[in-house]
Amino acid sequence: MNAMPQPASEHANLEALKEKARLLRIHSLRMTTRAGSGHPTSCLSAADVVSALFFHAMRFDPKNPDAPDADRFVMSKGHAAPLLYAAQAEAGIYPLGRLATLREDGSELEGHPTPRIRGVDAATGSLGQGLSVGAGMALAAKRLEKRDVRVYVLLGDGEMAEGNVWEAAEFAARYGLDNLTAIVDVNGLGQSQRTMYGHDPEAFRDRFAGNGWDAVVIDGHDMNAIVGAIDRARAARSGKPQVLLAKTQKGHGISFLADKEGWHGKPLSKDELARALAELHPVPPTEDPDPKSYARPAGGAPSDFPAVPPPNYTLGQEMATREAYGHALARIAAVNPKIVAVDGDVKNSTFAEFLEKTHADHFFQGYIAEQNMVTVGVGLAARGFTPFVATFAAFLSRAFDQVRMAAISRSHIKLCGSHCGVSIGEDGPSQMGLEDLAMFRAVAGSTVLYPSDAVSADKLTEALARLPGIGYIRTTRPKTPVLYKSDEKFPIPGFKVLRESAQDRAVVIAAGITLHEALKAHAELAKQNIAIRVIDLYSVKPIDTPGLIAQVKAAGNRVVVVEDHFPEGGLGGAVFGALSLAGIPLASARHLAVSGVAHSAKMDELLNEFGISAKHIAAAVKS
Amino acid sequence: MNAMPQPASEHANLEALKEKARLLRIHSLRMTTRAGSGHPTSCLSAADVVSALFFHAMRFDPKNPDAPDADRFVMSKGHAAPLLYAAQAEAGIYPLGRLATLREDGSELEGHPTPRIRGVDAATGSLGQGLSVGAGMALAAKRLEKRDVRVYVLLGDGEMAEGNVWEAAEFAARYGLDNLTAIVDVNGLGQSQRTMYGHDPEAFRDRFAGNGWDAVVIDGHDMNAIVGAIDRARAARSGKPQVLLAKTQKGHGISFLADKEGWHGKPLSKDELARALAELHPVPPTEDPDPKSYARPAGGAPSDFPAVPPPNYTLGQEMATREAYGHALARIAAVNPKIVAVDGDVKNSTFAEFLEKTHADHFFQGYIAEQNMVTVGVGLAARGFTPFVATFAAFLSRAFDQVRMAAISRSHIKLCGSHCGVSIGEDGPSQMGLEDLAMFRAVAGSTVLYPSDAVSADKLTEALARLPGIGYIRTTRPKTPVLYKSDEKFPIPGFKVLRESAQDRAVVIAAGITLHEALKAHAELAKQNIAIRVIDLYSVKPIDTPGLIAQVKAAGNRVVVVEDHFPEGGLGGAVFGALSLAGIPLASARHLAVSGVAHSAKMDELLNEFGISAKHIAAAVKS
Repeated sequence: MNAMPQPASEHANLEALKEKARLLRIHSLRMTTRAGSGHPTSCLSAADVVSALFFHAMRFDPKNPDAPDADRFVMSKGHAAPLLYAAQAEAGIYPLGRLATLREDGSELEGHPTPRIRGVDAATGSLGQGLSVGAGMALAAKRLEKRDVRVYVLLGDGEMAEGNVWEAAEFAARYGLDNLTAIVDVNGLGQSQRTMYGHDPEAFRDRFAGNGWDAVVIDGHDMNAIVGAIDRARAARSGKPQVLLAKTQKGHGISFLADKEGWHGKPLSKDELARALAELHPVPPTEDPDPKSYARPAGGAPSDFPAVPPPNYTLGQEMATREAYGHALARIAAVNPKIVAVDGDVKNSTFAEFLEKTHADHFFQGYIAEQNMVTVGVGLAARGFTPFVATFAAFLSRAFDQVRMAAISRSHIKLCGSHCGVSIGEDGPSQMGLEDLAMFRAVAGSTVLYPSDAVSADKLTEALARLPGIGYIRTTRPKTPVLYKSDEKFPIPGFKVLRESAQDRAVVIAAGITLHEALKAHAELAKQNIAIRVIDLYSVKPIDTPGLIAQVKAAGNRVVVVEDHFPEGGLGGAVFGALSLAGIPLASARHLAVSGVAHSAKMDELLNEFGISAKHIAAAVKS
Repeated sequence: MNAMPQPASEHANLEALKEKARLLRIHSLRMTTRAGSGHPTSCLSAADVVSALFFHAMRFDPKNPDAPDADRFVMSKGHAAPLLYAAQAEAGIYPLGRLATLREDGSELEGHPTPRIRGVDAATGSLGQGLSVGAGMALAAKRLEKRDVRVYVLLGDGEMAEGNVWEAAEFAARYGLDNLTAIVDVNGLGQSQRTMYGHDPEAFRDRFAGNGWDAVVIDGHDMNAIVGAIDRARAARSGKPQVLLAKTQKGHGISFLADKEGWHGKPLSKDELARALAELHPVPPTEDPDPKSYARPAGGAPSDFPAVPPPNYTLGQEMATREAYGHALARIAAVNPKIVAVDGDVKNSTFAEFLEKTHADHFFQGYIAEQNMVTVGVGLAARGFTPFVATFAAFLSRAFDQVRMAAISRSHIKLCGSHCGVSIGEDGPSQMGLEDLAMFRAVAGSTVLYPSDAVSADKLTEALARLPGIGYIRTTRPKTPVLYKSDEKFPIPGFKVLRESAQDRAVVIAAGITLHEALKAHAELAKQNIAIRVIDLYSVKPIDTPGLIAQVKAAGNRVVVVEDHFPEGGLGGAVFGALSLAGIPLASARHLAVSGVAHSAKMDELLNEFGISAKHIAAAVKS
């Protein structure tokens, strides 16, 4: 690769690195003052470390910073974005003149970093997630790609309070990610007050050591110490990830900012900037703003793969969709080497264990730590893999912020939530996913799928593996009969009409377990000479609005939506929203959903009690 | 109080405690076999510890286990619920015969514990949250109530991977909660495989010690060691919380279960039960099932308080609703001693800092750890306080699982999400709450409020403090003008009609920042002789459906909904869902919302770009 030569520390030009750090400080101050917002003092504390990383440690070609063999950097303390941008510009990834566009409408240099910018793998800004991103990338490089790629993650000390960080720390140690180096900028000042441990890097060192990391404390403003520590970390082949706890000062380098409270998130005024720059003289002239965008091209999708042989299920065969998902993963992995699975210690419940049996090196146990599990997935996806992250639907709510950030990253991670709804039965409400459709619908650019049988579960899993953006598939605990032939196609958006006649009294729109209840209701009503149309709305988002409208009209504009989910944000939200915007005058509309807090009981007792069973569907049709 | 005498360890009847442990094992096995589901081996490992807690350490009156001075117990490893129930029954809280109803429809003895049962303060079952519950209760007892109440939390080792646990550990040490004792049941077997640290309690000890706890490792099946350690923890006045790392065996006590893989979540068959009981002989006769419910009475609400003096804002005064929220908290706290605030290191952004100034002892800094912050709130609420938990709306998504569990607990916690929508401007999408209305609407029993000005922010904050269940209030970053007089009332459900005439072309339904944009649009359209009705939908859930229907009809069934939120699950979801179910035939419907991923820019640029500004509202009306 065309890269900067790899200097050993004895060749490290400390003066050059200190000079770069000085420039990074100047840029950070100038940028934020010009933008009128930003976090300059959070940049000043980390400038020496970032200089050592970008201009000594990291191996990359500034003309191609995302080459597969380039080292990676994650700015976990995302509000120090200006510092990252300054380093990237000084490294030559884009011109210095671009820095003046920080936070402007249309500039890829946003308030917090996103992958619109080359060299940035995932969006940060919601604290405590960057170490998981780094762990995912380090895992991919080491275990899947077998590439000598090193991943550096810069964290703030305030964000060390986030449990997500410690989930990532456990995970990285467990997987022996010695190609992962974290640096914590311990500047001792949070947003609103001194952070819990003040200037106590030793406490962090002990905690990291207790988690199986190699941990050292360094003076974060002593370039010789920084470079030495980074080099030793790089050279160590200890099988452990490394962390440098860098004791720093917020606002370091400017006398009226250094370690002063009240400056978080405050840009300097023009006068204050002039005073600050006087302390950093000589300062280079200001660059003319560069109006050209240096953003990465938009778009992208998961790695393509050939057609997957269809599954071998027979009509009427009893199989849970959660189990079919597991078989599908293994089947897709056989033709797609990019498939990886990350599970939350429930692999025998989500059936991700099938992939572990067929492709053990593509299966990673995340243990009971959903936040990290999801964001490790983002790291894996950034390296070109197609991760399927699975746990109980209810427990994916543990990682909503992580999914939200993954969407801002335009990541292609796929998630599977099993054990949805009251249909899980006696385990009770803590285990029941009743809000997951609402959660995943409210994710930018997401696809939300809900198969009712094993064949559709198989096809929809495969579909997700081909679609860009966040993908979610909802699976059911109990066994249900196969409804579709193995060669059935499931377009997205789309739905299936499973029962129809010319005299349909109403259309019942359902999915998953309620689809089967709707079929039972259809049979019951048929005995009473009442015909209904039954629709399997397997694609909840996007929804096939024109197709649905046609079906609703054919059934006299009488609609029953029935779902094993809370009333808000699920099938009902999707269907009634679409019909309203289309101006369809509903002669009659009923929404059967789970209202209130559920409890332990048998599945059939719960379906009845919460009004979503065949009996209730039939009653709704008749009313 | 009428309590069991406080034995010193030298008086502890070890044989009696071992006998109780044997009975707890018998009950756990019998219960789960009868129910046909459950986690008996997870109960067997912890039976000795639970016996020592219930029959030696904890001070409570079984006839009144929720008395304010009773010690508390949290079963954080919620799947060991049968063990808890067995202990409660043996202690006399309810008859042994009730145990046979485990997991039955109608029984308060659910698959995972909930506060339907006396002696249980919060629902568990989503792992890793119990220590936060305990920390919240310990904090309340020690710092607010000044009561000598000890809180015990039993965790499993698998759940120690959850970051939430470590957030709670930091918090408890920071607040010097030496009335909090955690016991970790280190049995080394997760659901699907050996846990990360196997049987390594020493690693946990080091990590807890690094977090500022007193930590010891004990043999979890040696009653003398257990009792001694508990007594020493109780006697220590070290200012530190204590943790006992109990080395145990999953399935301990039964030869074919002890430390065997594959038994997680599996009840014994009738034959296996017979073999197991043979190893635990002599066994007491089976009790007849007791059909009487011993559930706590349902209902409840936050502590009542007198009328709050109204705020002193003038029409047109510019104030951000986030700031008005802060003032409201302080004003309510002046008449309601139960108000407490927990903040996520953004107190100068959420303005919870005002409460810190007026009632510093009722303000708790949660630092950057939202999961713990929310569930500490649940602990505080369990002690009778009315907690207001605040951070940026986007970061509340970090705690969706915790909010979900709080709803299952029927907790009365209140949450405030500031910095909602694209209206925050240049900080960019990582800081923008665009899915929070969807999230909080999909919470059982929640109230979701969205004030557009300082007066309504004040009144709605007060309203939440009086309402039962989870309450959410969404606040805006930029200043907006006061629209209402200080004596205005805001019923829930309800909305305000701010502009109306007899010729309204359409009704525009908005809230927060878009309400102000709608008013601007009204003024613009008036110049063109086009009249529109403008509605401030401050109560998103519950929604005043009949009232809204009347307004929609008066405006010719032409509706524009405009919100600074994603299209899914927010105002649009609420409005169109309600109108659909009411069968209102919309002549025309438009939904203006933020589609896709936002980016850094000025607020006005973003409002325009994402189609929710006055200009777009006017255009939607005209089309």
